[in-house]
Amino acid sequence: MPTILGQNQYGKAENRVVKITRDGGTHHIKDLNVSVALSGDLDDVHLTGSNAHCLPTDTTKNTVFAFAKEYGIESAEQFGIHLARHFVSSQEPIKKARIRIEEYAWERIASSDANSKFIGADEVNHSFARKGQETRVTQITYDGEKWEVISGLKDLVVMNSTNSEFWGYIKDKYTTLQEAYDRILATQVSGRWRFNWTDDDQRMPNWERSYEQTKKHMLEAFAETYSYSLQQTLYQMATRIINNRAEIDEVRFSLPNKHHFLVDLEPFGLKNDNEVYYAADRMYGLIEATVLRDGATAQIPVDMTNL
Amino acid sequence: MPTILGQNQYGKAENRVVKITRDGGTHHIKDLNVSVALSGDLDDVHLTGSNAHCLPTDTTKNTVFAFAKEYGIESAEQFGIHLARHFVSSQEPIKKARIRIEEYAWERIASSDANSKFIGADEVNHSFARKGQETRVTQITYDGEKWEVISGLKDLVVMNSTNSEFWGYIKDKYTTLQEAYDRILATQVSGRWRFNWTDDDQRMPNWERSYEQTKKHMLEAFAETYSYSLQQTLYQMATRIINNRAEIDEVRFSLPNKHHFLVDLEPFGLKNDNEVYYAADRMYGLIEATVLRDGATAQIPVDMTNL
Amino acid sequence: MPTILGQNQYGKAENRVVKITRDGGTHHIKDLNVSVALSGDLDDVHLTGSNAHCLPTDTTKNTVFAFAKEYGIESAEQFGIHLARHFVSSQEPIKKARIRIEEYAWERIASSDANSKFIGADEVNHSFARKGQETRVTQITYDGEKWEVISGLKDLVVMNSTNSEFWGYIKDKYTTLQEAYDRILATQVSGRWRFNWTDDDQRMPNWERSYEQTKKHMLEAFAETYSYSLQQTLYQMATRIINNRAEIDEVRFSLPNKHHFLVDLEPFGLKNDNEVYYAADRMYGLIEATVLRDGATAQIPVDMTNL
Amino acid sequence: MPTILGQNQYGKAENRVVKITRDGGTHHIKDLNVSVALSGDLDDVHLTGSNAHCLPTDTTKNTVFAFAKEYGIESAEQFGIHLARHFVSSQEPIKKARIRIEEYAWERIASSDANSKFIGADEVNHSFARKGQETRVTQITYDGEKWEVISGLKDLVVMNSTNSEFWGYIKDKYTTLQEAYDRILATQVSGRWRFNWTDDDQRMPNWERSYEQTKKHMLEAFAETYSYSLQQTLYQMATRIINNRAEIDEVRFSLPNKHHFLVDLEPFGLKNDNEVYYAADRMYGLIEATVLRDGATAQIPVDMTNL
Repeated sequence: MPTILGQNQYGKAENRVVKITRDGGTHHIKDLNVSVALSGDLDDVHLTGSNAHCLPTDTTKNTVFAFAKEYGIESAEQFGIHLARHFVSSQEPIKKARIRIEEYAWERIASSDANSKFIGADEVNHSFARKGQETRVTQITYDGEKWEVISGLKDLVVMNSTNSEFWGYIKDKYTTLQEAYDRILATQVSGRWRFNWTDDDQRMPNWERSYEQTKKHMLEAFAETYSYSLQQTLYQMATRIINNRAEIDEVRFSLPNKHHFLVDLEPFGLKNDNEVYYAADRMYGLIEATVLRDGATAQIPVDMTNL
Repeated sequence: MPTILGQNQYGKAENRVVKITRDGGTHHIKDLNVSVALSGDLDDVHLTGSNAHCLPTDTTKNTVFAFAKEYGIESAEQFGIHLARHFVSSQEPIKKARIRIEEYAWERIASSDANSKFIGADEVNHSFARKGQETRVTQITYDGEKWEVISGLKDLVVMNSTNSEFWGYIKDKYTTLQEAYDRILATQVSGRWRFNWTDDDQRMPNWERSYEQTKKHMLEAFAETYSYSLQQTLYQMATRIINNRAEIDEVRFSLPNKHHFLVDLEPFGLKNDNEVYYAADRMYGLIEATVLRDGATAQIPVDMTNL
Repeated sequence: MPTILGQNQYGKAENRVVKITRDGGTHHIKDLNVSVALSGDLDDVHLTGSNAHCLPTDTTKNTVFAFAKEYGIESAEQFGIHLARHFVSSQEPIKKARIRIEEYAWERIASSDANSKFIGADEVNHSFARKGQETRVTQITYDGEKWEVISGLKDLVVMNSTNSEFWGYIKDKYTTLQEAYDRILATQVSGRWRFNWTDDDQRMPNWERSYEQTKKHMLEAFAETYSYSLQQTLYQMATRIINNRAEIDEVRFSLPNKHHFLVDLEPFGLKNDNEVYYAADRMYGLIEATVLRDGATAQIPVDMTNL
Repeated sequence: MPTILGQNQYGKAENRVVKITRDGGTHHIKDLNVSVALSGDLDDVHLTGSNAHCLPTDTTKNTVFAFAKEYGIESAEQFGIHLARHFVSSQEPIKKARIRIEEYAWERIASSDANSKFIGADEVNHSFARKGQETRVTQITYDGEKWEVISGLKDLVVMNSTNSEFWGYIKDKYTTLQEAYDRILATQVSGRWRFNWTDDDQRMPNWERSYEQTKKHMLEAFAETYSYSLQQTLYQMATRIINNRAEIDEVRFSLPNKHHFLVDLEPFGLKNDNEVYYAADRMYGLIEATVLRDGATAQIPVDMTNL
């Protein structure tokens, strides 16, 4: 046969597990979307129709839900580590497991004084609204020896309404863009950062605190950078993370330039003094780059989008 | 000709206007998606190919952007009122205007002390992150005499992790559902409320404060209701609004029951004590109802979704 | 209590039922998305927490799947009629049922001669690809006496690359649009048509043939109309249906004007002779109208979209 | 500085170019979504705020539209080759260009005889409906010396309503799945295939015919394979392509298992003899693999989805 089976993986994708933890009348939510991908000694499954080495995707799904009970969900990263370790260590044909998780954040619904007197003060400790801002993501990969943990976020839309310029660029025969000395800079952040924790013998990062601080530094860098290009802002965002978070060695961002075009109001006898913008959908600039701690090796995949 | 032209309307939809207002170094954003629909004496446009009575949709778009400069955007409602009045009063063939607006909320990005010393304290007063929670909506309709304002929100996901039961229902030959005495109640709120402001002579509501308070009362009612059905919770949410907001006479909700099914962990020797749930996408219960102040007449359309 | 319960309805939405019918080795697919909405004597469900009149949405879901077996799915319309009649006639509190259905079309995958000899000629009579063009829709409403059937389609994208003009329109102070004498006319058709079958004593239309012929007439009218506005094209599409299909009394279209803007290539020394266009997403004109057979009364809701 | 800039790329994404070619009264459409990504000597853009090496994304957009006029669009692949060569050869700092293109297919709207007599027989040679089935994709990468062309498709939904089994798999403590001896096998095909054309001196494939034939072989293999797992079907689809298309050396598929669950109708006294299925959205098995011509090296990225 002239064909060869190359890289392959399989598993149940998008297992939507919600875990409620009760601390007296106060409830806590973890709301995850977990995708499992296993690889290993699976040639026969593809070539001969024998499933003797195939742990069904349905079983990987059951394992996700059972582990939410057995281990709880301390963080998305910790939960993924439990799952990856289990698949690789419990089934001989499975040599590698990759767990991807999306996490949706919730906040508590506040109750006003007047009503809470009426109903009992702890009543609304079980009521939540989904925050709906960014989606937190993580990917845990385990081959039986080494860990790779890449976390991040997506769909966080941010804007600077000034302190952004763009000029001094190449002009060729197809260039019509006018130079800009005060423009809106807006983007929908998709970012990933890789931890230097790779071994069970190392001390594990505090995943929850790391996420919170990394997001904070990233946002501050976006806000505080006086920008001459989205590339420059991206670089500052990534550098700020690496400089402030010792547990992170590599950062990659994929930043669409969400164009806000100043509307020409002159035909109507009006002057548009950086006030009225048209927010365009497509086309958009797409700026992508990896930034590494000196000495680190790039591992985050280049293609975080399909465009 | 055996056919008759019935109700018709036209205009530019989804005009994405962003307005930046500068108060010294502190900037403010209004981020709207404005859709215009005009109707009137437009038979010839459909029947003869004459466009003599047709104000182009492109012109309605230009008007949206020009008005953002001329009037500013105090609130989505006020902005829609300016637009609707303009179209009806400035063009003789246009007898009625309906303006629909979606509004996206933004919050300021905080800067830490250490950095703000470095860059100047007001630096980040122009930096924002999109909140991404609910989308605020409004619809203004004007026929040259009377106003109808229907505001609301959509895509606000909320959950009570307890205090919800469902039992005592009809059982027929197709019923297999088990009664529930402690279940998760979750929904993605789509709500609309109609104001009793209809006339330029009446005092106009404070649209921004009304929205904020209406949302607050709605969320509190969701959180505080001990529920025997999503219908009952819906009714409480609507009633709470009408009882607390004198400017509102009618409320309608469309509430999908976002099912969270308790996962059966017994095959794995585990007891699921209301801890681990599977969040399902489809199918879902869909609960819809209008609630009116006594004496009011229903005007909000019944079909807020296409399902 | 100062609030009144108005119109309300409930049921299971988006039941994804797929029915395979075997005719020897040849299989047939019906692939539907069925949404049930029931109304009636349901005040107590909202007001008191009693569910004694509530047929659970879970039961309405079970009924959809059971009826696919009991009655088969001859057409979406016929299937909806079975369901609506059942809910109204079998449960005393249910006074009205509305069934909405989306249908997804499939086509057979062809097998080449060489391979079919190898595997047996009837082998691929069970292999299908989803067509993916328009989504067919229907809505059946029954109150125990009268039927209302509104069918249609959505998401059918069509284009005329010439034979479209737009000029002679109103110019006001906000008008900048240039008149067009040869433009692209493209739209994403959302159409609904109401049948004059309302009574069990009338002869029922052939729903499958009616859909096929109505779509054909609609497309021919779109293609053959020399257009001076999208309004005029819409009117011709609707009129063509009413003139050719005696079973239909009312048609409504919601047609976004999918703008294709001629790109200005002059800065690059090129002449764009109606060759290169930019397909815009937003903003878009939105043209909506009802056309009626003379003497008929409008029943199709005005708002088929939320914009 | 402790941080290093790694892989980076930028360009305008999602340029929606539509090209109309007129052959007398008969028009032809090419409808593309073109994304440009350039890389090279761009460190300063990120590090110093100098844009001296930056060709603006706006210029890359202009180039796409200008090239549609200058070169026409013979095929998506040929168009991408023109663009990639231009960027690398015309700007010294640009060392590598990657062009990604989505193509949307259109079909002609037929006109019936009666009407075409009325309007002239060639009238509808300019009228089209979007097919809406799969989206064709291609990616062209050029570094000034070698070409890499990876084409494919996505969103093609296919189903076999029989000839699929799944049994003999691993059972562990989390396994509850029942073995299946006659099940529906359905998937939404995302496939990519890499051409062995890499050099301007080689004879270029006929891109249009290659696509048509590759899709045909892939669909036939899907239809004709008696399947013991989706992995096995995937392998047959890929192998069939490599065996039949000499211009292709590598194929990768990402195939979600679109589960169709047999509905349990026994509670209603009905027997479900493989007739009534529930089409589930999530969770789904996700099966991914590369298949190579013997001796070829894998180049198609492993991650074609983000799940």
